[in-house]
Amino acid sequence: MIPTNSIGIVETQTFTFAQDEPFVLDSGATLQPVTLAYETYGQLNAERTNAILICHALSGSAHAAGYHAGDDKPGWWDDCIGPGKAFDTNRFFVICSNVLGSCYGSSGPTTINPAAGKPYGLSFPVVTVQDMVRAQVKLVDHLGIDQLFCVAGGSMGGMQVLAWAANYPQRTRAAIPLATTARHSPMLIAFSEVGRQAIYADPAWNNGAYYDQPSKPDAGLAVARMVGHITYLSDDSMQEKFGRRLHERERYGYEFHAEFEVESYLKYNGNKFTRRFDANSYLYVTKAMDYFDLGRDGSLSQAFRGATAVKFLVVSFTSDWLYPSYHSKEIVKALTAVGADVTYLDILSRWGHDAFLLEVDTMTGLLENFLGRLLREERDPSSAVRESYFVNGEGDA
Amino acid sequence: MIPTNSIGIVETQTFTFAQDEPFVLDSGATLQPVTLAYETYGQLNAERTNAILICHALSGSAHAAGYHAGDDKPGWWDDCIGPGKAFDTNRFFVICSNVLGSCYGSSGPTTINPAAGKPYGLSFPVVTVQDMVRAQVKLVDHLGIDQLFCVAGGSMGGMQVLAWAANYPQRTRAAIPLATTARHSPMLIAFSEVGRQAIYADPAWNNGAYYDQPSKPDAGLAVARMVGHITYLSDDSMQEKFGRRLHERERYGYEFHAEFEVESYLKYNGNKFTRRFDANSYLYVTKAMDYFDLGRDGSLSQAFRGATAVKFLVVSFTSDWLYPSYHSKEIVKALTAVGADVTYLDILSRWGHDAFLLEVDTMTGLLENFLGRLLREERDPSSAVRESYFVNGEGDA
Repeated sequence: MIPTNSIGIVETQTFTFAQDEPFVLDSGATLQPVTLAYETYGQLNAERTNAILICHALSGSAHAAGYHAGDDKPGWWDDCIGPGKAFDTNRFFVICSNVLGSCYGSSGPTTINPAAGKPYGLSFPVVTVQDMVRAQVKLVDHLGIDQLFCVAGGSMGGMQVLAWAANYPQRTRAAIPLATTARHSPMLIAFSEVGRQAIYADPAWNNGAYYDQPSKPDAGLAVARMVGHITYLSDDSMQEKFGRRLHERERYGYEFHAEFEVESYLKYNGNKFTRRFDANSYLYVTKAMDYFDLGRDGSLSQAFRGATAVKFLVVSFTSDWLYPSYHSKEIVKALTAVGADVTYLDILSRWGHDAFLLEVDTMTGLLENFLGRLLREERDPSSAVRESYFVNGEGDA
Repeated sequence: MIPTNSIGIVETQTFTFAQDEPFVLDSGATLQPVTLAYETYGQLNAERTNAILICHALSGSAHAAGYHAGDDKPGWWDDCIGPGKAFDTNRFFVICSNVLGSCYGSSGPTTINPAAGKPYGLSFPVVTVQDMVRAQVKLVDHLGIDQLFCVAGGSMGGMQVLAWAANYPQRTRAAIPLATTARHSPMLIAFSEVGRQAIYADPAWNNGAYYDQPSKPDAGLAVARMVGHITYLSDDSMQEKFGRRLHERERYGYEFHAEFEVESYLKYNGNKFTRRFDANSYLYVTKAMDYFDLGRDGSLSQAFRGATAVKFLVVSFTSDWLYPSYHSKEIVKALTAVGADVTYLDILSRWGHDAFLLEVDTMTGLLENFLGRLLREERDPSSAVRESYFVNGEGDA
């Protein structure tokens, strides 16, 4: 039964480009052709000014909202995308595309390499967040949209938002980077690398050439996911969610089964992940995140120097130890230095990094406010004010 | 060249007990016989009142100080144990034993099971921190010591210290639990379980029966160690130690080698660990930590109700997100509730969980102060004061 506030049944579409000319990546390598899987919700208005691009995180897909026929679970950000929701599909035309390198229909290691007649595997070129965004620009061109109303996303989705603002500032009116960073920290790289090492350590990985083999590196991918999963939670949320409760038993078993609820939960979700994600894609997407460092060729302010006309809503969460608030404050500082219009909120939350998906009420209020302000200014440009407010913020950002 | 402030060349000894009667574990399983590897530094005085027991953490051994013949690296806490050091071997008789279940000479999965004529492997019974301590009591008995001057240790070593204080309060004058907890949190259990899952996922693990096989589960153990290693550091210390520096290269390679310093460091140390530690022991020791919950059969105060005469020095470190300060504050609260004499310090440090080993100057000052006070009170009991001071503490503990 599909809830009445859902966008309803949706389908993933594909867009293929670079058939005639190769798509050149940051590495210098090329791809030809490139396919992006994408979904859209709502209607593009006649002026083509109401499009919002949603960018997904590490394990996400183009399926951000609504239901695929036969599914009982909606898209990954259905809480915030739909009729009357924060990204109101009665008003906005919402686009979400699967990133380059992923395994949900966009070009990636699972795609057939036309030159070889078999999946790319590790012969797929390494991509960057900027490459992902460059491909999204092609999609937005294809949809005939000159300027997006807004680009929004959390975690790796937030990195894409920042790359849009830095590299294509004229292509979006606003940017909403959530729970993210402009520069992947050594701790983030370390957790990425542990996940990759878990995959490499699985003999079934076979150097990435497992698509025609009887087994896949599921064991390694499950361990990688378990590591990641812990980092998306917080000490506090794990205390609340699991405590030291035992799973389906009363007392310690003194054996090596998963005895605690938290063990059982992680193991279950680690295994479940292997049924929906590809191990090689996990390598490519985490690698893209590790490379992300917007200020690498100068300062972060310099990276944002063209983004003075973009309106930003930057959000961090107090219990997010993976992308701690200071990462967002660095972004705000750099944006403020170039005179961009920035609203920053450091939201008090217990839910760790996952808070950007879980704090639905807070996020809904926040997004509605911010988008409402942009709509008012669109109707009446004289109403524009440079707002800056901070919740739990330290003001120094 | 052995430094002059080192205790010098030391040797590991062994003590075997439970030859005639089985040693009964918390699980109800038994071991017969039990061997503990141990080292001692300094001289036991005639009154047998100057013995300090040092308890090691997850991957430690009995080799806490001095040098094994031919080695160029000293024991794991040589910074604090030796002539003139915090645990001054000119004054104290320092003992350190390898925990039950480990692989440095004490009974564990690598030990030959006399009943089977081959290593126990997974037939070794699951042990608890309390079992480890019960075996240490046998060693202390064997050394003819009625009451220890003090028991000290960090991380899992701190859990042993707390178990000594709770279960054998009459056997020690003082207790120094560092960077530890009275109850392993779900986040700690989660990280333990991921490490174990990485080992299980390695086909060479072979359900623990790999001692007579051509290969060991090194790949799985290395991943487990990498996960652990990250958790011992802090975001801040990783920024300082590695930043985003590349390893032996100038620019991104766009490939899946370990390119960043932090990746290379973790990988190197993960692999190195497999040459010194046993994968099955990793399972046993982490499991013992996960079971640790001193207040399980009542309140934590109740667990400490016999420890009113023990003097405590409890220490946490502000950047330790694995064993955050609130764990230590819970211990202090429970001890205070039963009227124990507690000094608590929450030390400002950037070094994360590893701070208890790395903050040598601070720890030296602190330990010298605390042990000096105990020595003064021993000489002149009328000088005894109930001290309680807090550094960076919130006073409410």
